[in-house]
Amino acid sequence: MRGAKVHTSVTPNANELFVIPTRNLTETDKDYAVAFCIPLNTAGLKMIASPYGRGHESTFTHPVSSGHKMMETLTVFDDVFVPNDRVFLNGEWQFAGPLAKTFVEFHRFTAISYKLPLLDLLVGSALLIAEQNGIEKASHVREKLTWLISYAQTVRMLTKMAAIECTVKDGIAISNTQVVNIAKLHFASNYHQALMHVQDLAGGLLVTAPGEGDLKNPETLKYIDRYLGGSSGVSAEQRLRTLNMISDLTTSEFGGYQAVLAIHAEGSLEAEKLTILREYDQASAKNYARSILT
Amino acid sequence: MRGAKVHTSVTPNANELFVIPTRNLTETDKDYAVAFCIPLNTAGLKMIASPYGRGHESTFTHPVSSGHKMMETLTVFDDVFVPNDRVFLNGEWQFAGPLAKTFVEFHRFTAISYKLPLLDLLVGSALLIAEQNGIEKASHVREKLTWLISYAQTVRMLTKMAAIECTVKDGIAISNTQVVNIAKLHFASNYHQALMHVQDLAGGLLVTAPGEGDLKNPETLKYIDRYLGGSSGVSAEQRLRTLNMISDLTTSEFGGYQAVLAIHAEGSLEAEKLTILREYDQASAKNYARSILT
Amino acid sequence: MRGAKVHTSVTPNANELFVIPTRNLTETDKDYAVAFCIPLNTAGLKMIASPYGRGHESTFTHPVSSGHKMMETLTVFDDVFVPNDRVFLNGEWQFAGPLAKTFVEFHRFTAISYKLPLLDLLVGSALLIAEQNGIEKASHVREKLTWLISYAQTVRMLTKMAAIECTVKDGIAISNTQVVNIAKLHFASNYHQALMHVQDLAGGLLVTAPGEGDLKNPETLKYIDRYLGGSSGVSAEQRLRTLNMISDLTTSEFGGYQAVLAIHAEGSLEAEKLTILREYDQASAKNYARSILT
Amino acid sequence: MRGAKVHTSVTPNANELFVIPTRNLTETDKDYAVAFCIPLNTAGLKMIASPYGRGHESTFTHPVSSGHKMMETLTVFDDVFVPNDRVFLNGEWQFAGPLAKTFVEFHRFTAISYKLPLLDLLVGSALLIAEQNGIEKASHVREKLTWLISYAQTVRMLTKMAAIECTVKDGIAISNTQVVNIAKLHFASNYHQALMHVQDLAGGLLVTAPGEGDLKNPETLKYIDRYLGGSSGVSAEQRLRTLNMISDLTTSEFGGYQAVLAIHAEGSLEAEKLTILREYDQASAKNYARSILT
Repeated sequence: MRGAKVHTSVTPNANELFVIPTRNLTETDKDYAVAFCIPLNTAGLKMIASPYGRGHESTFTHPVSSGHKMMETLTVFDDVFVPNDRVFLNGEWQFAGPLAKTFVEFHRFTAISYKLPLLDLLVGSALLIAEQNGIEKASHVREKLTWLISYAQTVRMLTKMAAIECTVKDGIAISNTQVVNIAKLHFASNYHQALMHVQDLAGGLLVTAPGEGDLKNPETLKYIDRYLGGSSGVSAEQRLRTLNMISDLTTSEFGGYQAVLAIHAEGSLEAEKLTILREYDQASAKNYARSILT
Repeated sequence: MRGAKVHTSVTPNANELFVIPTRNLTETDKDYAVAFCIPLNTAGLKMIASPYGRGHESTFTHPVSSGHKMMETLTVFDDVFVPNDRVFLNGEWQFAGPLAKTFVEFHRFTAISYKLPLLDLLVGSALLIAEQNGIEKASHVREKLTWLISYAQTVRMLTKMAAIECTVKDGIAISNTQVVNIAKLHFASNYHQALMHVQDLAGGLLVTAPGEGDLKNPETLKYIDRYLGGSSGVSAEQRLRTLNMISDLTTSEFGGYQAVLAIHAEGSLEAEKLTILREYDQASAKNYARSILT
Repeated sequence: MRGAKVHTSVTPNANELFVIPTRNLTETDKDYAVAFCIPLNTAGLKMIASPYGRGHESTFTHPVSSGHKMMETLTVFDDVFVPNDRVFLNGEWQFAGPLAKTFVEFHRFTAISYKLPLLDLLVGSALLIAEQNGIEKASHVREKLTWLISYAQTVRMLTKMAAIECTVKDGIAISNTQVVNIAKLHFASNYHQALMHVQDLAGGLLVTAPGEGDLKNPETLKYIDRYLGGSSGVSAEQRLRTLNMISDLTTSEFGGYQAVLAIHAEGSLEAEKLTILREYDQASAKNYARSILT
Repeated sequence: MRGAKVHTSVTPNANELFVIPTRNLTETDKDYAVAFCIPLNTAGLKMIASPYGRGHESTFTHPVSSGHKMMETLTVFDDVFVPNDRVFLNGEWQFAGPLAKTFVEFHRFTAISYKLPLLDLLVGSALLIAEQNGIEKASHVREKLTWLISYAQTVRMLTKMAAIECTVKDGIAISNTQVVNIAKLHFASNYHQALMHVQDLAGGLLVTAPGEGDLKNPETLKYIDRYLGGSSGVSAEQRLRTLNMISDLTTSEFGGYQAVLAIHAEGSLEAEKLTILREYDQASAKNYARSILT
């Protein structure tokens, strides 16, 4: 095997690496129609890890990313030998498309499912900081909170419907591809707007707040306590912890990573659009329009 | 009874008129806490019908609205006498709110359910005219069609979920209020954008096409046939029929009526936003955010 | 001459008809590389007028469109003879592109200029009806009014800049093509959103209000006066006149005509996008990015 | 003097600190109606600097932020003595509003002016990476580039118009407040959308690319060169430098800082909306609408 794959996530944490085709292939591509599974320590298999987002160690300023980091690698096969008993596909190009499609269908459903806690956290953080900033009754704040709730809940309901409207093949439930892709596109194409609303409600302290050391130093803490306390008795520390969580989720390298993931991981915006158009029953829709005409 | 109600739809087609409070009332409002049901021909009951949208008789230029028109009235009660056995509420102000809310909950669910065929028709018409205009493979056309499909299907899936996530009280299923309102808001706040995309795909002939008489006159028909025929053998008449249907749905007074209905009927945009924010479990969302902080 | 042109506006009101190519041509298209000018009553020249939007005669319900209607025709040349002294181009295909482009450049600037009063009228009507409906101080109303103002003024400022940043050739000022197209795209891609906001502020009476006859009849007028009067002493008639103007501009066939014009007349959305990308100085922008890299 | 001000930018780099009121004051607030100027090393003046965004030292991974960082402080006045000859306002509450407004008017114009290079850099980077990724001719890529160009140029044109439509008072040009605020609102409310488009064009490597060390190590460089090179002979290093610049601008803490600045610095979204509505000539707009009615 010779080749490479960019952004393979958390591979260094795994024991075995599965490799499958990424798209439909024709007979002339048959050399690429391979699928196999090998241990990570196989000779010739190289992982070049990305340093992106590493190194934030303060649980105060980076409450989420200080403890969570997905390792991304450029994974290289430099003349890797794969034993026959680990080979699943070896030139059978007709199976490349179905295999790739099957993976995508399940993986994109996984994607919208695992994003729900992130969206809930954005909504919950927005509600919390609006309260701690003492602005939760302002009309424009309520408008933005409603937008965030509607966004998160629309993704949730579409995700549920994708599962409810599944088909069952050989005892395995396959979520509804069209609905999965509509959910993913809704999630992805509105994510940056959601970040804007959360940052809007949180305020500039997201990127200008004092650091951990200043809260531990009584000389500076007294000023922080006096001037940065929140609404209804919320301490400066509590409010700054909320702000730092939002900063970590939306303005840190972890936040940037999540934003890029939203539009690229588990399928790009354009891949989702293509799938929606392909999966929609266009003939029925046109027939319905024709039936009104006559 | 003395008072009036604007835009009461299809009342002249009914036999009986139900009247209920429209909102929460307090003790000082108790004179308004009335509910009753009377025949339409009761003395003192007046209906002033709107002439809006009347008078399009050609099934060619107005294939939908020539046969469909909801009558809207200003309904006036000019000292109307209501017999005791038709009275359901007579000053019991505590029941005004619950009664109004119950009506709205059911009515708004009806609203999103009955809009689905309209949205399907917009999608089907867009697919059909894109094909007849010979542009269905253009990249920007596919983008707009995908937007329309995603819009219609999102409203459909949210509507289904509102029913699936119902609660059952005394054997009666009550759809999920939060989801109903998210569906309605999604429908309403994107409807004009949908009109834009459909009109964009259809083209200027929506508002500049020849009329019925010119298709019946061989002298003009020969030019129309030569120059306005559609892609892949679609006749000028077929294409103009499709265009006229889209014009009727999006640029006629019927189209304008549907657009205003989208944002005002069965609750305004702002009423939907208020309901979403109120129905969302804010405490749980904030607790989830707090749980990540500690 | 043989051929046809769809949606030629107000041609029946003209004395002479100018004909020019609509796009770049190659040598093989040279038979289409013609430009000329002929009187409207030339033999073989036919105009098939569109009946769209005709017939609203009440200045009460249709204050604008009852007196204003652009006649649109399918204009057909059925073996029309053009005398030599009215011919400007006769096969010189190299001039087709420049001639078409020159026309478009001037015409699209005209387009954004003549739309400004329409946008001002939408803003003014929205402000007026918000006041007459007594809602002008509500936070969401102010938000929507601000959106409308920003929209109209952005188109105005871009239009002015297109003129200010002109180039002068042979004493003739040519507006800045890039800015013209950005202005036109901004106008066109937000017009339906503007309609939504105006309709939102006006309310359902746009499509359910009593007609002219009911205001002339004292029996019905007394109810209309009692129940449909506006805020701060505005009479029902005054308020209904404002509502009817907005209805005429946004929900009548005239309103539909304006909406389709916004996205199709004087260049489609896609034509504007192509022009913007082509007119932008991409090389300088890329060089600036490269200069930051090194 | 006693009090504090959050996010005072680059104060530690200054010699003198100017203090002015931030809003209109009434007589009861007269103790807050102060304006003065003092050296930064005055006793009792404390600056608590934010650690946000510090510590990226690689010019390879962080080409912009490794060399640029605005220091933000919580600036505290702990019983600071201000000599009489540095005092400009001392209880004259009538001047608080005008002084604050004057500052905001100039400062918000500065804001939109200094954002233009950032927007140009986003556009230039997007054009460059589209080319290096070999996707610049794809239809959806051209659509997104056109959006970015229109966005940046609209802000530029509005900024220019704000200067052109200035008023001159005592020889000092004051930019047009309404236009300034429309420009700022357009910039701020579309900035996150711009980030989405740039990230969309750049791809997932923004947050998964190899680091500087791996490019210096021949063992890993050979793989990077083989698999990550760009279109038309662009080396892997060149492409990664472009990607890292975009990552620095849009997904790093510097990128997060810029995003928060967009919506909070020099006035929030809501402050801009209030100003636009206040500065617009509502009476003329309503009169124009009235003139059409009669």
